[in-house]
Amino acid sequence: MPSHDRPTLGIGMIGYSFMGMAHSQGWRNASSFFDPALRPELVAIGGRDGAAAGEVARRFGWQHVETDWRALIARDDVDLVDICTPGDTHAEIALAALAAGKHVLCEKPLANTVEEALAMAEAAERARADGIRSMVGFTYRRVPAIAHARKLVRDGRIGEIRHVRAQYLQDWLVDPESPLTWRLQKDRAGSGALGDIGAHIIDLTQFVTGEQLAGVSAITETFVKERPLPGAVHGLRAEVSDGRGQVTVDDAAVFVGRFTGGALATFEATRFATGRKNSIRLEFNGSRGSIAFDFEDMNVLQFFDGATPATEAGFTRVVVTEPEHPYVAAWWPAGHGLGYEHGFTHQAVDLLTAIGEDRDPEPSFADGLAIQRALDAVETSAASGAAWTPIEQPAPTH
Amino acid sequence: MPSHDRPTLGIGMIGYSFMGMAHSQGWRNASSFFDPALRPELVAIGGRDGAAAGEVARRFGWQHVETDWRALIARDDVDLVDICTPGDTHAEIALAALAAGKHVLCEKPLANTVEEALAMAEAAERARADGIRSMVGFTYRRVPAIAHARKLVRDGRIGEIRHVRAQYLQDWLVDPESPLTWRLQKDRAGSGALGDIGAHIIDLTQFVTGEQLAGVSAITETFVKERPLPGAVHGLRAEVSDGRGQVTVDDAAVFVGRFTGGALATFEATRFATGRKNSIRLEFNGSRGSIAFDFEDMNVLQFFDGATPATEAGFTRVVVTEPEHPYVAAWWPAGHGLGYEHGFTHQAVDLLTAIGEDRDPEPSFADGLAIQRALDAVETSAASGAAWTPIEQPAPTH
Amino acid sequence: MPSHDRPTLGIGMIGYSFMGMAHSQGWRNASSFFDPALRPELVAIGGRDGAAAGEVARRFGWQHVETDWRALIARDDVDLVDICTPGDTHAEIALAALAAGKHVLCEKPLANTVEEALAMAEAAERARADGIRSMVGFTYRRVPAIAHARKLVRDGRIGEIRHVRAQYLQDWLVDPESPLTWRLQKDRAGSGALGDIGAHIIDLTQFVTGEQLAGVSAITETFVKERPLPGAVHGLRAEVSDGRGQVTVDDAAVFVGRFTGGALATFEATRFATGRKNSIRLEFNGSRGSIAFDFEDMNVLQFFDGATPATEAGFTRVVVTEPEHPYVAAWWPAGHGLGYEHGFTHQAVDLLTAIGEDRDPEPSFADGLAIQRALDAVETSAASGAAWTPIEQPAPTH
Amino acid sequence: MPSHDRPTLGIGMIGYSFMGMAHSQGWRNASSFFDPALRPELVAIGGRDGAAAGEVARRFGWQHVETDWRALIARDDVDLVDICTPGDTHAEIALAALAAGKHVLCEKPLANTVEEALAMAEAAERARADGIRSMVGFTYRRVPAIAHARKLVRDGRIGEIRHVRAQYLQDWLVDPESPLTWRLQKDRAGSGALGDIGAHIIDLTQFVTGEQLAGVSAITETFVKERPLPGAVHGLRAEVSDGRGQVTVDDAAVFVGRFTGGALATFEATRFATGRKNSIRLEFNGSRGSIAFDFEDMNVLQFFDGATPATEAGFTRVVVTEPEHPYVAAWWPAGHGLGYEHGFTHQAVDLLTAIGEDRDPEPSFADGLAIQRALDAVETSAASGAAWTPIEQPAPTH
Repeated sequence: MPSHDRPTLGIGMIGYSFMGMAHSQGWRNASSFFDPALRPELVAIGGRDGAAAGEVARRFGWQHVETDWRALIARDDVDLVDICTPGDTHAEIALAALAAGKHVLCEKPLANTVEEALAMAEAAERARADGIRSMVGFTYRRVPAIAHARKLVRDGRIGEIRHVRAQYLQDWLVDPESPLTWRLQKDRAGSGALGDIGAHIIDLTQFVTGEQLAGVSAITETFVKERPLPGAVHGLRAEVSDGRGQVTVDDAAVFVGRFTGGALATFEATRFATGRKNSIRLEFNGSRGSIAFDFEDMNVLQFFDGATPATEAGFTRVVVTEPEHPYVAAWWPAGHGLGYEHGFTHQAVDLLTAIGEDRDPEPSFADGLAIQRALDAVETSAASGAAWTPIEQPAPTH
Repeated sequence: MPSHDRPTLGIGMIGYSFMGMAHSQGWRNASSFFDPALRPELVAIGGRDGAAAGEVARRFGWQHVETDWRALIARDDVDLVDICTPGDTHAEIALAALAAGKHVLCEKPLANTVEEALAMAEAAERARADGIRSMVGFTYRRVPAIAHARKLVRDGRIGEIRHVRAQYLQDWLVDPESPLTWRLQKDRAGSGALGDIGAHIIDLTQFVTGEQLAGVSAITETFVKERPLPGAVHGLRAEVSDGRGQVTVDDAAVFVGRFTGGALATFEATRFATGRKNSIRLEFNGSRGSIAFDFEDMNVLQFFDGATPATEAGFTRVVVTEPEHPYVAAWWPAGHGLGYEHGFTHQAVDLLTAIGEDRDPEPSFADGLAIQRALDAVETSAASGAAWTPIEQPAPTH
Repeated sequence: MPSHDRPTLGIGMIGYSFMGMAHSQGWRNASSFFDPALRPELVAIGGRDGAAAGEVARRFGWQHVETDWRALIARDDVDLVDICTPGDTHAEIALAALAAGKHVLCEKPLANTVEEALAMAEAAERARADGIRSMVGFTYRRVPAIAHARKLVRDGRIGEIRHVRAQYLQDWLVDPESPLTWRLQKDRAGSGALGDIGAHIIDLTQFVTGEQLAGVSAITETFVKERPLPGAVHGLRAEVSDGRGQVTVDDAAVFVGRFTGGALATFEATRFATGRKNSIRLEFNGSRGSIAFDFEDMNVLQFFDGATPATEAGFTRVVVTEPEHPYVAAWWPAGHGLGYEHGFTHQAVDLLTAIGEDRDPEPSFADGLAIQRALDAVETSAASGAAWTPIEQPAPTH
Repeated sequence: MPSHDRPTLGIGMIGYSFMGMAHSQGWRNASSFFDPALRPELVAIGGRDGAAAGEVARRFGWQHVETDWRALIARDDVDLVDICTPGDTHAEIALAALAAGKHVLCEKPLANTVEEALAMAEAAERARADGIRSMVGFTYRRVPAIAHARKLVRDGRIGEIRHVRAQYLQDWLVDPESPLTWRLQKDRAGSGALGDIGAHIIDLTQFVTGEQLAGVSAITETFVKERPLPGAVHGLRAEVSDGRGQVTVDDAAVFVGRFTGGALATFEATRFATGRKNSIRLEFNGSRGSIAFDFEDMNVLQFFDGATPATEAGFTRVVVTEPEHPYVAAWWPAGHGLGYEHGFTHQAVDLLTAIGEDRDPEPSFADGLAIQRALDAVETSAASGAAWTPIEQPAPTH
């Protein structure tokens, strides 16, 4: 069926900064390159600064601008609310949207606390009975190489998993004069590197293995404890203002853990890995093979097949751009790689498909809650001198 | 100035297949992420199959569909004609568009023969007097790492260039049962790997060095001389039909050459490099440093700075995603890589900017002619047993 | 001074298996390629199996064979005792050698327990008063890239260190039918992956940073708990015999820790990293730069210099084969890489030089004791559910 | 059979510089790590400077020093003459050695001219009737990864070969003040980069493919035409003296060619590839797979198996250190890499084995002659403006 004959789904997005632009691009491309069961209509963008939101609206084709997020939710032509605001606002907006009978896509991490996340997961579960769908935006799952890794594991190609190693390395805070933006304030961001990027690698390792992280021993650190206050903000960059303030979140978190299947794990999330811009490195060693991934080479998956004779065995550099690979057929010919933003299109397509086919999208708010519990365990362990801290496991899902 | 206040430029695009989709995405994103002096309006898409063109129109927001390319050119609201059709139609369309006073963007290679290319370059030069601009679509120039390489060379960072090595390696014809599509027919495609991908690396090496290829000794080969006739075509893939036909183009071309500045060069363009999907590898060795690039890792440029002390010298893997790098600031934060398609946006932006600022865009039709002459020299050399064949140099440009 | 005019030092080596061959090659090459202050004379090799030891003697030029290690120590022409036997014999032999006034080189780990290591370190300290030198064989320190990394850190090139990540990954136990050799028996080997390879990365990270590991939270695991008994042994490989036995050591150990300077660290030592044969990966992120190393590419050091402008910054792949690099001038021209065994020559040269110049070689038995304490802390932490376990710091050395 | 019971072969080596040291190490290690049918005895080293030769003798265990190479050949206890001198002396020495009934190992290239090489090949063929063996020292064939590549090709794993690309890149002449050593003088060295390193990649590509290079179109260049005269020489390095002289050899040679099986080839040999120290890169694309090698990562072979399904296909990074790989079992456990020098041991072992088993070693003097003819064709082509120049094919061998 040609895409223009699909029923539409009205999208209302709240937030218009970095994530707002990425989501806009995702929604717009969804029905340009794919044929999801529902065709997204970019109905309204919400933001307190109407002029700024309006500029993004014009650039990406949002039809309306709302400066009050409650008004956006209230619109009849909005069927789905996409939450791209800082973490301290997620719970309130999501609960209101679900209460209003709107599907919800919420950026990660789901919330700033376990309590908020729990309330959201419960609300989502209730709404589910009425066919209302909700999903958390762990976009990196939608990188084709990651989705392919998930498939290899599910197909048993690496066997029983013994080792998980995961690193999310950035370096944008190495400069001690980098200003104290909202991402460095606990009341806005919940936590620092842990919730911002650590949450991603917890999700990715759970997604790829199909297992849960069961417990951790963790260390966190704030290397630079005081920073200049921020001035004007330009995207992720901000100018420096007069005065200095306390950094109230972690700069880095490292932890060891165990997965429910018995695998040993090491995790590292940091904004102080000098020279590593956005390096997400994952490796899984199993009884029959291994998988490795680095987001700096995002179109590639390394696969070691233990069934290969020793003289020919090695890590195979699979360029994940074949039409048979997840998501790829919709785009360009083999070898014509995708970039960071394409994950947002895949996310939009997966969500539109799930809603259109009346299925639950993944990751659910319950999954988001489980990750929030893992983040909480990391903080608890770190606060108690790296003591072992089990992670409350989710009840078996429906 | 916010982008929506910019004057607009009406775009009419002919062709709606692989290149048509890439160009559509380029035009659409141009004013979403950048602020070019002119804002492109996607006025009309042209294609003989109106239904197919219409589907692309709806997917990407083209306002009108024209099944006759002459009608598209004739539209008053079309200011620029973007030619995305096979090479045998380039000359006729481009000449008509220029005659109608429209700016022209023409996919590479400029034409199928030197004669056609010469006529086009002359027409472009005449139109130039009336402020009509024309450009050839050597998109890979717009990959940030390549544009950064050009800058390093221009800044003298690698000194006098001694070696150029360039490879464009694909493998989509290794299977002898892959069908005889138009790209394998001389009357449609002009040549095979040579014109399709060899043209790119000739352009890229000339662009990065700022020099011209002066002469070549070349070998070409058609490894599989007969193939099944094609059936239905799906993007770059085609089904197989009954009967077989002769492959009338080269499968591979290899040549040595000299640049005007004295550098020795090796070139390889092939569709038979098993395992290499779309590998464009460039290396430049100079008296003061070296540069290396591989499109399989397209966000990276390798730079060897000869001024570094020996104990610390080496190829530096520059991840070309900093806001200071060409084109990058408009997109995502450092480390969030771009993909294949982004070059088409950069191309659109560069062209819109040049027209808006009343400057000549690059590469010009004259540049396209020069490359056609190089392709012709390669074929002449190959036909005469790899004899040395000089390339006619362009007259000094205006 | 030509090497043959140097005074000699009589070497007596105990053990003739894998390590015995590596040390033999090291001693032999020391005065072929270098000019250490003392010229080693390969006086005697000791082993209970006289025939097997004799074969190694003939292959590498050892002049005598002793089947009783006490007799070897007692020889007047033996000035230095090189201990290449399993860990459960280190203490007894080393104490006897020191008591006999012989210099000692002892393979790592220094001993199987802290108690033994303490006794050895105390004996070494006493012997030191009489000019008797002792050293532990942490050979990987002598890889030129590692020694160069140490120099960069010492020169302040990466500033204050924030992150240490270290992995020693092997996979030779993935097959559950691989036999129960002595390395899998606690009474012989002390521990498993932890002491065998974990000891190396603790030493390497302490060596490169110049700091001590201060505490850990650790998990260890034995994935395959029962294995076939071993039959005949061929080097590192053994045949399988009838019956099965319990594996009494760890297969893998993972831990987080802190260094004395405040850096956060993750460590992983495993024999179950399918596809990783002998991969030692180290990364150090500092306030001014970063360093990365992988033994699979052992002639290379990756260096990120934070002082480089952003557009040109990146990890530089330094091929550590320049004459200005540590140890390299003695060998081959630039680009002609060294292999695993060369570290043993460098170790021999460093030790001969220290003895000849009447200086203390490094790492000392006290350093070996510190590592033993770190290994002990890892086991203690793992046994108490990954609880944080501080590592007793060495008293300030002389 | 233990190595010491093997019959011995008396080795006399002429030359004691870089190659002399590498060969010494090769002979010495041959019976330490392997069990060749004959055990080499390091009988005599020859060199005009008796003191310098004596120093090398003492370092590596040569029993005698001869300052007249004719005297060395004349010694009864010398069974094999190993020629490590500059190319202009190869023919005279080799002819004399063969005439004296001695086996000969001659460093590459076999000679400085086709005429010399022809005389040598004929003499070798005559001597062969008397059981006298001769071999040329193309050592890189003995790198395990290369030998493994040869095996994969021979086993049909990459099918019919379509593309050969070979580069030998060095940069030691980039500095125009680097002195005019013998390697830059045509009368001593025969040619420049072409004979010194181009000869290696011609040999390697012929060895791996099992085919011959049939013809070439070539360009050569001398970028720096005048250099300071050399002063004292230290290994490969020399001081600068007063005065300047003409460089009479090529700095770089690039050529395209065809192999006898139809493959297209590109070759590049240069001493001006800034930043590339000793980079030998080979790639072979065949109808069923591909192979790639880079000497900067010499323990690794990249293998693309076309039989693998597209979703899992890619270049596999085979770490060629398994006991099943060529030469490897004699050395260290898997993952403990070899270095540059080990090829010389493998060469010695292969030669000793062939002589001991009364077989012809490879590459023969006839193979050396074939390469000399290829070098000559390159020079002929370059001198005639890159005209196509066929290479005289060897008569079918015995």
